[in-house]
Amino acid sequence: MALRIAALAGGVGGAKLAHGLARCLAPDEFSVIVNTADDFIHFGLAISPDLDTVLYTLAGLANPDTGWGRKEESWQVLLEVEELGGPTWFRLGDRDLALHLERTRRLGQGETLSSITAEFSHRFGVDHRIYPMSDDPIRTFVKTDAGWLPFQEYFVKRGCQPIVRGFEFRGCKQANPAPGVIETIEEAAVVVFCPSNPWVSIDPILSLPAIASAVRTKPVLGISPIIAGQALRGPAASMYAQLGIEPSALAVAEHFRSYLSEFVIDREDEQLSQKIQELGIQVAVLDTIMRSEDDRERLAGEVIAIARQMLQGG
Amino acid sequence: MALRIAALAGGVGGAKLAHGLARCLAPDEFSVIVNTADDFIHFGLAISPDLDTVLYTLAGLANPDTGWGRKEESWQVLLEVEELGGPTWFRLGDRDLALHLERTRRLGQGETLSSITAEFSHRFGVDHRIYPMSDDPIRTFVKTDAGWLPFQEYFVKRGCQPIVRGFEFRGCKQANPAPGVIETIEEAAVVVFCPSNPWVSIDPILSLPAIASAVRTKPVLGISPIIAGQALRGPAASMYAQLGIEPSALAVAEHFRSYLSEFVIDREDEQLSQKIQELGIQVAVLDTIMRSEDDRERLAGEVIAIARQMLQGG
Repeated sequence: MALRIAALAGGVGGAKLAHGLARCLAPDEFSVIVNTADDFIHFGLAISPDLDTVLYTLAGLANPDTGWGRKEESWQVLLEVEELGGPTWFRLGDRDLALHLERTRRLGQGETLSSITAEFSHRFGVDHRIYPMSDDPIRTFVKTDAGWLPFQEYFVKRGCQPIVRGFEFRGCKQANPAPGVIETIEEAAVVVFCPSNPWVSIDPILSLPAIASAVRTKPVLGISPIIAGQALRGPAASMYAQLGIEPSALAVAEHFRSYLSEFVIDREDEQLSQKIQELGIQVAVLDTIMRSEDDRERLAGEVIAIARQMLQGG
Repeated sequence: MALRIAALAGGVGGAKLAHGLARCLAPDEFSVIVNTADDFIHFGLAISPDLDTVLYTLAGLANPDTGWGRKEESWQVLLEVEELGGPTWFRLGDRDLALHLERTRRLGQGETLSSITAEFSHRFGVDHRIYPMSDDPIRTFVKTDAGWLPFQEYFVKRGCQPIVRGFEFRGCKQANPAPGVIETIEEAAVVVFCPSNPWVSIDPILSLPAIASAVRTKPVLGISPIIAGQALRGPAASMYAQLGIEPSALAVAEHFRSYLSEFVIDREDEQLSQKIQELGIQVAVLDTIMRSEDDRERLAGEVIAIARQMLQGG
């Protein structure tokens, strides 16, 4: 029986599970909806970091060492930008730059981010659909002890050093989901929240009212991005701590309580199972760390098995 | 005795003579004012082809084979743009791209093209001032048998194939000369028209009324870009022919008749001397082809000597 899954994802962690799911499911069985609230304009170019990480990962072009950017990358342009005294805090490789150039050119001609993403996917041989959450600009701003910061300034330029006080996803109320996003959710049997940062990867996607409403009609299976109180990468755990919440898989479950039917936590967090179940959320305990491509496929297979059980009223 | 020269220049030919003049004269004796009407936006980036050719040439960074672009260049980005199905008709090398990125970023922050050019010159160790003719957008459009075309579309994308019927420098009447341009002309003893395309390199500079007025108060020494009826490069000669004018150094002298005090023609065109003198323009006959850097310096030295004679009422 075909099982349709729509996943919500941010950058590296989400991209890895999405890659695993794409290897387990046919293109008409799996699509991924990606955060675009960390998009920004840099050097006049339209840059979509999460979208590109998912695209490169599904295309097998991602840099395995960093998780973002391209493998077999060169850095001639950025070296020369440095010679010119320009900013190099956002690491733009030469091949990666080509994507930003061509996206910017197409956007300037009136094409949409979603149609451009579909074209790039086609060029890269990615058959599964990758949807930007919206073709409209939504921008994450981080309220910090250093004031409101655009996301990339907080995240990359300042290396997540400022203390976080809150978030805004500016433009989210006026934005429409990209064409196909709501249909993809509606046609899915299960919506998967990938192990991405709840605050700045998944929340921005759910900040679009139409997406939140569509997701609420579906069984939702989440995978915790926090293991033993730590995020595998990125500032998710420190964001919880700075906001006065003890970082844990339980905190993430509470975060998404109004959506989740079932939550996957790591074996390291097995002791949290009961407290999560007390929230009315089913719990599955798995090895969730994806070190290798085989790990991605294995975890994806287990996620799919759980999704099937959910549908069978398990 | 110090001799101040202000030169008007377009791309490759103008840049070569400007380079020679910069090797012969001190930074306070020589400045160059460069055409920006062939500037354009490509991939969202602000590109200034003539300005960059002059900058790279004076910095010793120009590609000696092409005359434009940078030496020791790599092409990783453009190769990847091609993979993505993007346009590659405008050859953007990796190092060259860095300049466009950083210029675009600075323009976006509200800096002016002239201040950015001064900063780049400083970074590249160029002590002579390179002025864009204006910080305001002026754009050459070419009227052709295929309709009005933006300059780069005519020049590079279509390889000068459409038949030329005329030119417009859109925005020239509203534009102000860049800061320092008028002062540089006023303080010059002689204004030099470099051997650049009259129609699309020098005319656009003179299309700014304030520049034209300032130049008219000065002795002007021109160097013919047309030798034996041919342009060394570019479409200058075919433009004359398509506009119904026999291409020749004489045609260029007539073109600039209202400005020129003296005109340098190549030895191959010596027989045109009398007809040019009949226009009321003094003539000097020189070897004007600059094959080597030494040629640039030799021609520049001869141009400077002629300028001195002009001032001595020779």
